[in-house]
Amino acid sequence: MQIQDLPPSAACLPLAETLKQRRHQLTALIDVPVVLWSGRSSARNFPANIYPFRTSSHFLYFAGVPLENAAIRLEKGRLELFKDDPTPADLLWHGVTSTRDEIAAAIGADAAFPLIALMSRTSGAATLSVQDPATRQQQPRLLDRPVASAHQAQGLDGALAKAIAHMRLCHDAAGLAEIRAAAAVTVEAHIAGMAATRLAHREAQIRAAMEGVILAHNMTTAYSSIVTVHGEVLHNNQYHHPLQPGDLLLADVGAEAESGWASDVTRTWPVSGKFSPTQRDLYDVVLAAHDRCIEQLRPGVEYQDLHLLAAQTLAEGLVSLGILRGQPDQLVARDAHALFFPHGIGHLLGLDVHDMEDLGDLAGYETGRSRSDRFGLCYLRLNRPLRPGMVVTIEPGFYQVPALLNDPERRATYQDCVNWEHLTKFADVRGIRIENDVLVTDTGCEVLTAALPTHADAIEALISR
Amino acid sequence: MQIQDLPPSAACLPLAETLKQRRHQLTALIDVPVVLWSGRSSARNFPANIYPFRTSSHFLYFAGVPLENAAIRLEKGRLELFKDDPTPADLLWHGVTSTRDEIAAAIGADAAFPLIALMSRTSGAATLSVQDPATRQQQPRLLDRPVASAHQAQGLDGALAKAIAHMRLCHDAAGLAEIRAAAAVTVEAHIAGMAATRLAHREAQIRAAMEGVILAHNMTTAYSSIVTVHGEVLHNNQYHHPLQPGDLLLADVGAEAESGWASDVTRTWPVSGKFSPTQRDLYDVVLAAHDRCIEQLRPGVEYQDLHLLAAQTLAEGLVSLGILRGQPDQLVARDAHALFFPHGIGHLLGLDVHDMEDLGDLAGYETGRSRSDRFGLCYLRLNRPLRPGMVVTIEPGFYQVPALLNDPERRATYQDCVNWEHLTKFADVRGIRIENDVLVTDTGCEVLTAALPTHADAIEALISR
Repeated sequence: MQIQDLPPSAACLPLAETLKQRRHQLTALIDVPVVLWSGRSSARNFPANIYPFRTSSHFLYFAGVPLENAAIRLEKGRLELFKDDPTPADLLWHGVTSTRDEIAAAIGADAAFPLIALMSRTSGAATLSVQDPATRQQQPRLLDRPVASAHQAQGLDGALAKAIAHMRLCHDAAGLAEIRAAAAVTVEAHIAGMAATRLAHREAQIRAAMEGVILAHNMTTAYSSIVTVHGEVLHNNQYHHPLQPGDLLLADVGAEAESGWASDVTRTWPVSGKFSPTQRDLYDVVLAAHDRCIEQLRPGVEYQDLHLLAAQTLAEGLVSLGILRGQPDQLVARDAHALFFPHGIGHLLGLDVHDMEDLGDLAGYETGRSRSDRFGLCYLRLNRPLRPGMVVTIEPGFYQVPALLNDPERRATYQDCVNWEHLTKFADVRGIRIENDVLVTDTGCEVLTAALPTHADAIEALISR
Repeated sequence: MQIQDLPPSAACLPLAETLKQRRHQLTALIDVPVVLWSGRSSARNFPANIYPFRTSSHFLYFAGVPLENAAIRLEKGRLELFKDDPTPADLLWHGVTSTRDEIAAAIGADAAFPLIALMSRTSGAATLSVQDPATRQQQPRLLDRPVASAHQAQGLDGALAKAIAHMRLCHDAAGLAEIRAAAAVTVEAHIAGMAATRLAHREAQIRAAMEGVILAHNMTTAYSSIVTVHGEVLHNNQYHHPLQPGDLLLADVGAEAESGWASDVTRTWPVSGKFSPTQRDLYDVVLAAHDRCIEQLRPGVEYQDLHLLAAQTLAEGLVSLGILRGQPDQLVARDAHALFFPHGIGHLLGLDVHDMEDLGDLAGYETGRSRSDRFGLCYLRLNRPLRPGMVVTIEPGFYQVPALLNDPERRATYQDCVNWEHLTKFADVRGIRIENDVLVTDTGCEVLTAALPTHADAIEALISR
């Protein structure tokens, strides 16, 4: 990290001022010192060949810039930075990087020390466990007490987790500006993916066109891209399949800004450039579910109700297409929709694509609530009333997952409500998902990725450009 | 991994036959059972958001296919595979993957078991420590003894490290076919990078064009790409700098095949499409060092002598340009060349870009040899007589590293042999490197990346296409 690499402040406030406000908010929520580690890189196939390093999100939230092998200490609004200056070997191999004091000045730290000084500054501090095992082993040694995984944080650490979850649930102007920047690049990436389809022969080529846009903006992917003609595989990370004219391609690809803030978008489009009638019928059902959620999305609305609204809309659409039989509300009550929509309507989005998922369901679930056992609800990652400043995804889908549809037990359970014979006519739809990033505003919502069309006609137009 | 994902056997032998031959070779070198782990994925910012997983290279060499959370046991030519079958949740989220038995059949395993069965099959086995900490913690538990880091392997494990290093030094037909496949894609990536230069405004766009080619071939980068106008930073992994017409761009980018085999290529080209006279002068010096090494490269030649030949050629060139003063051989003896060429002439290439560097210098250095203390030799990663079947890189360079050239002690040491005043005329050259992948053949060598030109005129032609 060089000083000239500090992320441009797209927000109104300078970075140091934003960080100061975050610290003051934290001080109001917790009255013990807080130490947060940035984490360190992980070896790939040998120690010097590392995975591209990602700084811990909690550290990023309060330090503002990606740093490796650093720590910050927060107490009563004060920020201390702990980082070693580059060694002569660093200068040779990694070039002139900012000094500790330069970074401290840029982020508005009140003091800056070499890492060794942290040893005497950890007493009574709360922390959160990081992801990389090297730092993870260091944390209990430096704090002289056990440190549980972040999703099991108790005592001081548990209180810190709650405070941070509370703060990070609703984004400030600086965070939102970074999400908007990531979202804009993601939109461009999807448009490039659609435009690359006509000349592509396999999934990997579409993926390359999309990730190429992200790399060209000096961003990274926020998660392993899904770019597949097997959309029924929910987390498919293979890209070797050939593209056939009758296929639908499902692309779930999102950029992450240099500052760490994420976006997360899915579109599904026909490889040939034209949806078949069956594909368009089902696409329009998924789009109706998406659109109705967006229409209802505003402060105070329960996110689980949006999930159930999507389920209801899907059930209605599948009944009208003759795939499901019965009353839509009764089908949803029996989780029949989940045969074709076996995941939640979305999740929080922020510095993590599933924001704060390292804390388990602490951020996603309102205090006192926990995951349902219901087949149609158990995958829901967010169950809270919405508040202004939250960013969530809305991502309904329709899938024909062989592992679900061919399961004898499920077929027996849902024997009466699925027209299995009629379903075979929709064999050219393996998976459809439509996903946008949505900001809860004071009076409603704003689709941050609205520049990327969702309607089938508009998608077709982008492919044949 | 699905069965249809097995790497196409570009070699003469089917994969299972290649693996059998490797096992027989191993049996001749070590007479205890061997257990090798594939390793597991590492968390990025939260446990479910992982870095793209890379299978351990030693496992890949004997198992042939990338697998996660698996192990193999080798004994007297026999291959046993240990891997759990996919769970119902795997089927939903990750799709239909090959079963253990299908993988076993494809790789010619004699038997296949769930992972739990490994517990009773580790007695007396040698192993090598993997990179990911989760598996690393498991290894001593399952073997019921300590397991040192791979570069410190002792006893049985040390004997195994020696045997594997011996085998992996010289590649068989299957390994070579995979390196050739990776090299071909790397050549295409560099040509795309050159072609993208005219319209690019910053480094990230060139990187995107190059990595886009690699992704489109469903390959990955073998290491973090270096694509920079600051070529003097040897391991520069930043891509934010703007491209100025007078800049040289240094691109060190290599593809890794799906099977894990690597390539590693560097070219340096003018952003404007035309080398300045000073840039071309220094480029031609580096190219002369490259060409003379290739001319001399054959079985029996000491790799260190190639390094010194490159140093000598660079010193001659810099003397003729008036940058160095004195006799080239005496300048090299005093390490004056290393002021401008502070790294080794190259390294082994195979399943790792620095092949087997996890074993320390065991593979790179002939028994009984160790790293020199000399400034001009200490970075040399390979010090052995060359043998047919080895693949090495040849990568001379010229850099103006401020941390070296502005160091008062070094300036004093080399006061008499550098014309500092004259050097300022070459300020538009920050870093040049030319790197190819070279196979040692029975009678000489073959440049595996020869399809990518090295001559300045040819480079200029590729940029202005």
